[in-house]
Amino acid sequence: METVMERECSALGGLFQTVIGDMKGSYPVWDDFISKASKLQSQLRTTVVAVAAFLDAFQKVADLATNSRGGTRDIGSALTRMCMRHRSIEAKLRQFSMVFLDCLINPLQEQMEEWKRVANILDKDHAKEYKKARQEIKKRSSDTLKLQKKAKKGRGDLQPQLDSAMQDVSDKYLLLEETEKQAVRRALVEERSRFCCFVSMLRPVMEEEMSMLGEITHLQTLADDLKTLTMDPHKLPASSEQVIVDLKGSEC
Amino acid sequence: METVMERECSALGGLFQTVIGDMKGSYPVWDDFISKASKLQSQLRTTVVAVAAFLDAFQKVADLATNSRGGTRDIGSALTRMCMRHRSIEAKLRQFSMVFLDCLINPLQEQMEEWKRVANILDKDHAKEYKKARQEIKKRSSDTLKLQKKAKKGRGDLQPQLDSAMQDVSDKYLLLEETEKQAVRRALVEERSRFCCFVSMLRPVMEEEMSMLGEITHLQTLADDLKTLTMDPHKLPASSEQVIVDLKGSEC
Repeated sequence: METVMERECSALGGLFQTVIGDMKGSYPVWDDFISKASKLQSQLRTTVVAVAAFLDAFQKVADLATNSRGGTRDIGSALTRMCMRHRSIEAKLRQFSMVFLDCLINPLQEQMEEWKRVANILDKDHAKEYKKARQEIKKRSSDTLKLQKKAKKGRGDLQPQLDSAMQDVSDKYLLLEETEKQAVRRALVEERSRFCCFVSMLRPVMEEEMSMLGEITHLQTLADDLKTLTMDPHKLPASSEQVIVDLKGSEC
Repeated sequence: METVMERECSALGGLFQTVIGDMKGSYPVWDDFISKASKLQSQLRTTVVAVAAFLDAFQKVADLATNSRGGTRDIGSALTRMCMRHRSIEAKLRQFSMVFLDCLINPLQEQMEEWKRVANILDKDHAKEYKKARQEIKKRSSDTLKLQKKAKKGRGDLQPQLDSAMQDVSDKYLLLEETEKQAVRRALVEERSRFCCFVSMLRPVMEEEMSMLGEITHLQTLADDLKTLTMDPHKLPASSEQVIVDLKGSEC
């Protein structure tokens, strides 16, 4: 009986150690995540700058088409709309890179200190409780053993005392098992809550990412407009022919 | 009559010069566009590398959750799905940056040489035709003037000859006007076809951009899954409690 309970408690203690060990061993993975996320974030920040400069240049091309004397104002307007839509995408990208830093990278970095602190406390508290409980069990067990020896030598009726002592050891084992289960549960909750915390930091980032989608959907119509307008490059639209007619009229 | 036609032809010539001038003056704008597009493209290329490294690190975090002894396998799977979807987005981004270079930047750079060549030919041809036509008109006009002087002095009946000469000048003006109109039309078509060409190069780039959209739409479900799984960090799922039960079973 004692051996079975002993084994169960050891197994629970072992599981606790594995979970705590997993958590303590995970810091390099989290550190690497933060490092790669930071690099990506700074990359996104410079990309936003490049996008802004590109859109300035794109708008100038659109202005060329809009301001030409010939009939390319229609293409110019469509290009300008396309450029403006991309300004919104640029703003979303800028927002995304900020949220990436403010809602994920920085809080996760801070959170890791807390994680380390909590894992150490869990470990220390568990070790203390475990040691104390084991010592008590050891003491009661040795008391029981002494009683058993006495009983064998037949000195008076020690059976009631012996029964009570054995029950005491058994109770202590049950208590230890319950304590160990609670410790394992605390460790598992701590481990799970880390990932929950990570996901909660990830969520605003994903939301920003998905909100870029709203901007991209509008692109299809603009792309279709541009396609229609530029379908036949060698046919001047009525507006261009009008330029020639107007010129004649104004000079006559 | 002559003055009106003269003015019309000059106006058409002026419009032609404006359009050609606009085209020739636009090269710095196109050069700037190509330069900014190239910078953005190289920025995108390094961003793809940073995204790839980030996703590697992200996958390791997902693996932590999947491989832990406690019950976070569900979160690990959801994180892995999220990571895989982003691998597709990474691939689309890589494709986008390649198409940006191969379908827009490089062809536009080459096209500009052709644009310069064509604008110069249009300009030269027009100048030659215009000069030739003006010289002929000048010659016929001066012939007509001589005939008019002769007619005033009353030397014979020159009226039929004079009428024919004046008709001739008028015809030449009409021809010049038609020639000028054609030249303007050619210039306008050339100008418009530049923008059409630009849009045709832009289209595959926009298509790649929009196809990233298809990937982002799938994110919503994954984000919702993660939210549900991590809603209550302090409640262990049945699978985690099972870990404890299984442990007891295996040790008894």
